[in-house]
Amino acid sequence: MAYNVLPLTKLVEQFERLPGIGRKSAQRLAFYVLGLPKEEALAFASAITEAHEKIRHCAVCQNLTDAQTCPICGNPARDQSTICVVEDPRDVIAFERTKEYHGLYHVLHGLLSPMEGIGPDQIYIKELLARLQDDTVREVIMATNPTVEGEATAMYLSKLIKPLGVKVTRLAYGIPVGGNLEFADEVTLYRALEGRSEI
Amino acid sequence: MAYNVLPLTKLVEQFERLPGIGRKSAQRLAFYVLGLPKEEALAFASAITEAHEKIRHCAVCQNLTDAQTCPICGNPARDQSTICVVEDPRDVIAFERTKEYHGLYHVLHGLLSPMEGIGPDQIYIKELLARLQDDTVREVIMATNPTVEGEATAMYLSKLIKPLGVKVTRLAYGIPVGGNLEFADEVTLYRALEGRSEI
Repeated sequence: MAYNVLPLTKLVEQFERLPGIGRKSAQRLAFYVLGLPKEEALAFASAITEAHEKIRHCAVCQNLTDAQTCPICGNPARDQSTICVVEDPRDVIAFERTKEYHGLYHVLHGLLSPMEGIGPDQIYIKELLARLQDDTVREVIMATNPTVEGEATAMYLSKLIKPLGVKVTRLAYGIPVGGNLEFADEVTLYRALEGRSEI
Repeated sequence: MAYNVLPLTKLVEQFERLPGIGRKSAQRLAFYVLGLPKEEALAFASAITEAHEKIRHCAVCQNLTDAQTCPICGNPARDQSTICVVEDPRDVIAFERTKEYHGLYHVLHGLLSPMEGIGPDQIYIKELLARLQDDTVREVIMATNPTVEGEATAMYLSKLIKPLGVKVTRLAYGIPVGGNLEFADEVTLYRALEGRSEI
């Protein structure tokens, strides 16, 4: 009992297990929470339990939502003919921030990874294919990360989807906007060259 | 509603208000907590409420405890004749880590700061003086931080305590162990010189 007080030790340990939080930070955060007015500390605790109780997957796109379907799937103004496939709900947030994508999403909640024992049944592939059965969807954009697993998942999915007569596209690779050629790695630079367009 | 899901937005906001946690980190932490098994998330939430409900100030030294008095005050093996005065419960933890101090503590829960409107009645000075009324305590060690407020509080307390016939001491200033002379500021170096001892 490092702090001589069990509830405090427990609180520090809880913070310490969060990603990127070391012992010193955990202690600082625990003391901060302890110093909050009682109702604010209770609000913090109930935000955690509430998030766990109320948040579930959208019945259509598997994005996080607190209703049967998410607001994006329920919005008739969104382009119903395009689905952007992402690994994680955070990727949806990133796309929504651009305000330039008006189609739908599909969240896989993971990527294929034989090394970690994650096969097609562990991520939401079946649910994606089910959405392509009628002729509403005409394009599926693969927006998985440009990692080995992201590429493999995109390739696997495109092989399943193309036979359904749906166009499959992949995000463009290239130099990040504001980036510096000097610091770009060879693969990125090669992909940027390969994907060059006329101006 | 940045995340389209109110409970998630709330959780991110709760993490965002913690010290040193920005928007990106708050999002990462919220998603991490959301991904925890349900019982672990509930344990996190209850660690917060429990800490708030059970932790209070020790009736003697004002350190944090979940009982009437803290384990240090309740330990007869500790040297009852020495009190180390600190600003914050974290300072007690730091001293206990050295395993070299065997006396008692007194936690002020703040420092005198006229600029912030903190006077002698806002910190636990009255309670410290009450502990010096019988002749048990023979030395009070001022272990407040070497800041303007820390120095002022130590000076103020020593003026109140000395007339009671109790010895008042101050932590030594000097070069930190493992420190580098080259990087020591002038005041620290001067204090180290002033406090030199024969070898």
